[in-house]
Amino acid sequence: MVILGIDPGSRITGYGVISSLGSRNEYIASGCIRIKGDELADRLSQVYAGITEVIDRYLPQEVAIEQVFMARNADSALKLGQARGVAIVAAGNQLLPVHEYSARKVKQSVVGTGAADKAQVQHMVAMLLKLPGMPQADAADALAIALCHAHSRLSLVSVAGVASGKGGRWR
Amino acid sequence: MVILGIDPGSRITGYGVISSLGSRNEYIASGCIRIKGDELADRLSQVYAGITEVIDRYLPQEVAIEQVFMARNADSALKLGQARGVAIVAAGNQLLPVHEYSARKVKQSVVGTGAADKAQVQHMVAMLLKLPGMPQADAADALAIALCHAHSRLSLVSVAGVASGKGGRWR
Repeated sequence: MVILGIDPGSRITGYGVISSLGSRNEYIASGCIRIKGDELADRLSQVYAGITEVIDRYLPQEVAIEQVFMARNADSALKLGQARGVAIVAAGNQLLPVHEYSARKVKQSVVGTGAADKAQVQHMVAMLLKLPGMPQADAADALAIALCHAHSRLSLVSVAGVASGKGGRWR
Repeated sequence: MVILGIDPGSRITGYGVISSLGSRNEYIASGCIRIKGDELADRLSQVYAGITEVIDRYLPQEVAIEQVFMARNADSALKLGQARGVAIVAAGNQLLPVHEYSARKVKQSVVGTGAADKAQVQHMVAMLLKLPGMPQADAADALAIALCHAHSRLSLVSVAGVASGKGGRWR
C-alpha cells in the first residue's frame, strides 16, 4: 500500500510518499511544490499539476491530508482553502480516496502527543522512516500525515480484522 | 467572444455564459451546480466536473470570477476557498484565462453603484440580457460577473484601440 500525504499551502505544498506493509512503513519520496508567479489561476494550476505529477510517478493508492479546523484569519483561510481544494480535487480526479486527519491526530500518531511542536514531528518522522537527515518542514508534515494514515489503517485493520481500512472513501 | 462567469460556493456554484460582441451582450446559458453528499473530495470533484462540463458545452474563451476580499469568518473562508480554487483550476486546466473582479466592481459595472443589493443585481442582469424572468440568485451573480468582464474588456479595447483586452491572463 503506497500512501501519499499532502500538506497544502498557498506558497508551498509539501508531499510525502511512503510504503506501508503491516506495521512496517518505508520512505519512498518527499518534497515540496514551490508555487511561483502572481497570477492566481496559474499558481493553482501549479499545485494541480504538481500533485498530479507526484501521483503519476509514485502511484499511491490512498491519499491523506490535514484537516483544517482553525485558520489564523479569513484571508489566509481563503488562500489555504484554494490550494487545499485544488490538491484534493487533483487526487479525486485520479479516483484516489482522500482521508482527512486533524493536526492533533497527526501529532498524536507520530509523536505520541497532540501538543507536539514542529521540530518534534520532524524528528520523529526522520526516526520512524530511518531518514539520513531532517526532511524539509513541509515535506516532514506531509510524511507525518502519511504515517498517521498508515497507523490509522493498521488499527482499523486490527480492530475489524479485515484486509482493508474502513471508514474511508472507497470508490 | 463567449464569456463564462462563475460564482463559486461550497454548496452552490453559479455559472453564467454570455456572448459579447462590441457593446452587445447576449444570454447563452446559466444555472447552478448544486453540490451533494458529505465527502469533501467528492464534493470538490462535483465542482470540478460541473465547471468542466459547462466549458465543454459552451466553449467560453474567457472566464471571470469574483474576487473575495473579506470572508465572514475563517471557517467559511476555507470552504469558499476550496470551491473557488477548484473552479479556477478547472478553467485553468482548459487553458482559459481567468479574470478576477471585486464584488464592488461587478455591482458598479452592472447596476451603476458598488453598493447595490442582490435584488438590484438580479433585476439589472435580467434587463441587460433581456431575460423573460428573474434568474436564480447564484446564476444571476455569475451572469453579472460575466457582464462585468464584458464591460471591462470593452473599455480596455476602446482605451487601447486593440482587438483584445489587456491585463488579463493569456497563454
